[in-house]
Amino acid sequence: MTSDSALPGVTLVGGGPGAWDLITVRGMNALVDADVILTDHLGPTDQLDRLIDVPGKEIIDVSKLPYKRQVSQGKTNELIVSHARAGRKVVRLKGGDPYVFGRGFEELQVCREHDIPCEVVPGVTSAVSVPGAAGVPITQRGVVHSFTVVSGHLPPGHPSSLVDWSALARTGGTISVIMGVRHVAAIADALMAADLAPETPAAIIQEGTTDGQRSFRCTLGTLAETMTDHAVEAPAVYVIGEVAGL
Amino acid sequence: MTSDSALPGVTLVGGGPGAWDLITVRGMNALVDADVILTDHLGPTDQLDRLIDVPGKEIIDVSKLPYKRQVSQGKTNELIVSHARAGRKVVRLKGGDPYVFGRGFEELQVCREHDIPCEVVPGVTSAVSVPGAAGVPITQRGVVHSFTVVSGHLPPGHPSSLVDWSALARTGGTISVIMGVRHVAAIADALMAADLAPETPAAIIQEGTTDGQRSFRCTLGTLAETMTDHAVEAPAVYVIGEVAGL
Repeated sequence: MTSDSALPGVTLVGGGPGAWDLITVRGMNALVDADVILTDHLGPTDQLDRLIDVPGKEIIDVSKLPYKRQVSQGKTNELIVSHARAGRKVVRLKGGDPYVFGRGFEELQVCREHDIPCEVVPGVTSAVSVPGAAGVPITQRGVVHSFTVVSGHLPPGHPSSLVDWSALARTGGTISVIMGVRHVAAIADALMAADLAPETPAAIIQEGTTDGQRSFRCTLGTLAETMTDHAVEAPAVYVIGEVAGL
Repeated sequence: MTSDSALPGVTLVGGGPGAWDLITVRGMNALVDADVILTDHLGPTDQLDRLIDVPGKEIIDVSKLPYKRQVSQGKTNELIVSHARAGRKVVRLKGGDPYVFGRGFEELQVCREHDIPCEVVPGVTSAVSVPGAAGVPITQRGVVHSFTVVSGHLPPGHPSSLVDWSALARTGGTISVIMGVRHVAAIADALMAADLAPETPAAIIQEGTTDGQRSFRCTLGTLAETMTDHAVEAPAVYVIGEVAGL
């Protein structure tokens, strides 16, 4: 866990859900100070447009577009290390929070392995803020005392899935699914098979907090159909629970 | 849902976990613009110290200190309404995110009932960022695909509890407990009774992201004892799951 203090190092910044001013003050300051910014397509891209003309600041797109073009994690890691070892101040800008399905810890470990100082700046997670932007509070006193954030990138029952959807259906809390557009039908079915009522309120929010935000209220039973009817595409969050009916 | 557009209205701001620069840019701008700030004891209090001498800006402490002095929610609501109806630009500053056990939706409803425009600015939630500040990622690829944030303000089995701790023990995800200092022993027991292994890694973080941050690694089986041994006090977060052992 030693690091080379002669290097300015790497800052992993959670950029928040998308709106440029929902990044933290600390994250914004890191962007302003950076020599190199390695960025996703999520998060505050408008902000980067403002910075892109600053002389000497290099901005590199390392997006993983869902089901589309991919910059591999290995390539991203290589870029982080090579720029940092060359003495540049590197920011790795991510959507949401670096530790919420953001591979933040993997990139932190890569830096440590290469003796590069690394700091993590948390961000506003889309799993909470995107429903909020559509008027759905993730918790409400007297209604719910917990919420679960789950990645829907694998369908229930997939051999690599680490989620017990049946237990999840019974926690009594709000369920917020991110990266779950493709597998929504299987996810809704799994929750209903575990006796979560089809009448349970649900809400879908695409591109939350940005100019492109669209949201739809429905129920668990009509969730998949509603997404199809409105041609909802990633990035989107859906929330299942009483709070979606408030 | 109409509102009186002649009023500047109310902004509910999530102040983040405690460090002054972990508020969002939008939240910071709202503080700068406010005539009146109604604040908790959590969140970025340092920041308020910088603003407190600005002429014409009134700062009112409406803290609910755990197990100590309480400003009732009714009184807080009255202050929000009276200042807003008097034409002042009101910020209600909260720790974390307004919708994560923050009564944000209740205060939004109060504003709507009084025809006061109200905007909600999300914040960095302590449930994710405080573990992160102590090096515990709430998720990690290949280790966990979900996490649950749960309020520990009521013990398992309490007649008003809305949490099925037994189901929670089986989700396969990380569990992040906030407001759970007092009932830690009962919570750990309930999870172990539902077959969550006593060897499951755990971490406790008090006053995360502030100068007073202290953290301890332990296991589910030694969680309560570790908190007692180190005299951990609120505000604290504890995390149970494989990520606490990384």
